[in-house]
Amino acid sequence: MRNKNYILTPGPVPVPFEVLSKAAEPIMHHRTPQFSEIFKEVSEDLKYVFQTKNEVYIFASSGTGAMESAVVNVMQPGEKAIVVRGGKFGERWGEICQAYNINFVPIDFEWGYPVEVEQIEKALKENPDAKAVFTTLCETSTGVTYDIKSIGEFMKDKPQLLIVDAISALAVEEFYQDAWNVDIVVAGSQKGIMLPPGLAFISVSEKAWKVIENNKKTGFYFNLKAMKKNLAKATTPFTPAISLIMQLKVALNIIKNDGLENMFKRHKLMAHATREAAKALGLKLFAKKNSSNVCTSIEMPENIEAKKLTKKLRDEYGVTIAAGQGQIENKIIRIAHFGFIDKFDLIVGISAVEIGLNQLGYKVELGKGLAVAEKILFEL
Amino acid sequence: MRNKNYILTPGPVPVPFEVLSKAAEPIMHHRTPQFSEIFKEVSEDLKYVFQTKNEVYIFASSGTGAMESAVVNVMQPGEKAIVVRGGKFGERWGEICQAYNINFVPIDFEWGYPVEVEQIEKALKENPDAKAVFTTLCETSTGVTYDIKSIGEFMKDKPQLLIVDAISALAVEEFYQDAWNVDIVVAGSQKGIMLPPGLAFISVSEKAWKVIENNKKTGFYFNLKAMKKNLAKATTPFTPAISLIMQLKVALNIIKNDGLENMFKRHKLMAHATREAAKALGLKLFAKKNSSNVCTSIEMPENIEAKKLTKKLRDEYGVTIAAGQGQIENKIIRIAHFGFIDKFDLIVGISAVEIGLNQLGYKVELGKGLAVAEKILFEL
Repeated sequence: MRNKNYILTPGPVPVPFEVLSKAAEPIMHHRTPQFSEIFKEVSEDLKYVFQTKNEVYIFASSGTGAMESAVVNVMQPGEKAIVVRGGKFGERWGEICQAYNINFVPIDFEWGYPVEVEQIEKALKENPDAKAVFTTLCETSTGVTYDIKSIGEFMKDKPQLLIVDAISALAVEEFYQDAWNVDIVVAGSQKGIMLPPGLAFISVSEKAWKVIENNKKTGFYFNLKAMKKNLAKATTPFTPAISLIMQLKVALNIIKNDGLENMFKRHKLMAHATREAAKALGLKLFAKKNSSNVCTSIEMPENIEAKKLTKKLRDEYGVTIAAGQGQIENKIIRIAHFGFIDKFDLIVGISAVEIGLNQLGYKVELGKGLAVAEKILFEL
Repeated sequence: MRNKNYILTPGPVPVPFEVLSKAAEPIMHHRTPQFSEIFKEVSEDLKYVFQTKNEVYIFASSGTGAMESAVVNVMQPGEKAIVVRGGKFGERWGEICQAYNINFVPIDFEWGYPVEVEQIEKALKENPDAKAVFTTLCETSTGVTYDIKSIGEFMKDKPQLLIVDAISALAVEEFYQDAWNVDIVVAGSQKGIMLPPGLAFISVSEKAWKVIENNKKTGFYFNLKAMKKNLAKATTPFTPAISLIMQLKVALNIIKNDGLENMFKRHKLMAHATREAAKALGLKLFAKKNSSNVCTSIEMPENIEAKKLTKKLRDEYGVTIAAGQGQIENKIIRIAHFGFIDKFDLIVGISAVEIGLNQLGYKVELGKGLAVAEKILFEL
């Protein structure tokens, strides 16, 4: 018999059964009141997930599409942006700026650390002509969550917009768009919202709209002005990804029933258990501060290549965890603990790491990480 | 009991059961050999559908995303393009050019007619500095199919690229990218390929690559250079729409089993039956020439608003056909006959039109359109 598959990666996450099966229902036409009703409902419910009164727009694209949308709608060629680059996804903001001739000032620091408010303050002082700060809620490549609350507090009365890539962390980490003064928030479907990939979300504050409405160039496929005009009629400018939106309705009902605060708590507990299990096995955490509740990044011992471990676990046991990305691709593993990953999935993930490390010749005491995880997860 | 739903619109089309149910299977991770194998297979099989040796790239987006990709990768700001505008989708090429500061020369003509090769010839003669001709295979808004074969023949040795939006007509109308000298072909998932919306396809010739590789600006999310680099590793630059790609594999197997030529024949027969049924009911066809095999556009009698008829059929009987778009929104109806729409679906569609017109006060002889359709569809 083949192995069952366990996915513990920071996206895609496993999709709940009732969400999966929704996609097996017949397709409906998108220019109908029947679809518009669903579209209106999910657009409204997304506000709860973003904790915002702003409209949330839905693109047929992966999360990066919504990042591109934020850049091309807010920034005009030659204008200046500040980009926080503490990992691969921060770098992506820079790459998008570059593709559109946006003059960007990077805030670079060592991977594994969060950005500090003081760094933002300094960058804004040195670049008062900057139009926006682009940053990340959880820098998934390093497993570090940034303190967006404090950054938002600092930027509250500044002329600049605060634009946050919350792709991996929305509905996972504590996050409140309006209370935290975030102007634009970008998210994707295959993360905390527990859908297959293919939808991207973006929520835009009034302050951001004032900027966008004054811009001459705002893209085409990712044009927010067109999205706004169409959402007012409960539709989209181009054909939406109908089956994914039908699934989104089911997923949002699960989230509403669970309650965001309960979800935050659960992810926090699971992240805590994973960190302590790793430490019990004598492993080092890669995140030096603000270790995320999305995924735990764990340094590999000398002589153990991360990709060798992840490949082994995937191919031999059906357990998929992530290696690193970019400059630390082979140095760390990342175990995700959000979305439709439950406590026993995590037990499986930690067990797989214990087994795999031993088989690769790095001896850890079997069951030691698991015992700690059990204790924390089940309050023993 | 509620009505069953019949969709006879030019996208989305109904999705075959085995394609629908594929989406109910657990999500897999996209950075795995398991997914790469599927991705390689579908990318290869798409070449058959496009009738090309060129690579076919897959975006997570609706078809318009692939149109944007063609524009931003081929054209640089200020350069000149020729745009064929015989309907709403031709207009879209112009709108995308406008959004990216492309200087475009429109070829405009009366809706309901195809573009003629002589019009292309004249435009190219007057604009030898144009870099590409952007046109449509089936202009779905009018139900007219353009003679791309002749246009490709004419443009064969010209320096300009021929770029065709085949979104609604790929795997429906006869079309052979390589044999017809088409440089870039754009398609979408929710049409002849019989998937839910959310994937866009684009195939790029060597001649087009030479242009693209010399371009400095080629976008970000829709960047073809990045797509090419990633496809060589059987992957995509950003998270693909995994569940739709799993479904794509099933859909492409159906297409391969049916055989493209058989599909072309079937759509042709169904289109013929629909036209003759409409004429038998005393209705006029809107397409004055090259009526498409994607959908049949039928003029509404004086005093019958198209949208009143389509709304009635949808809300009262569960039968969804399309009204017009743009300047002819309320003047025509469009009945689609491709994808997973079979002969009896078409019988239902024609029946619904007979019933609806009578109920709206325009008397047609009941069964007269149906009799003609039966005769043609079932060779009686």
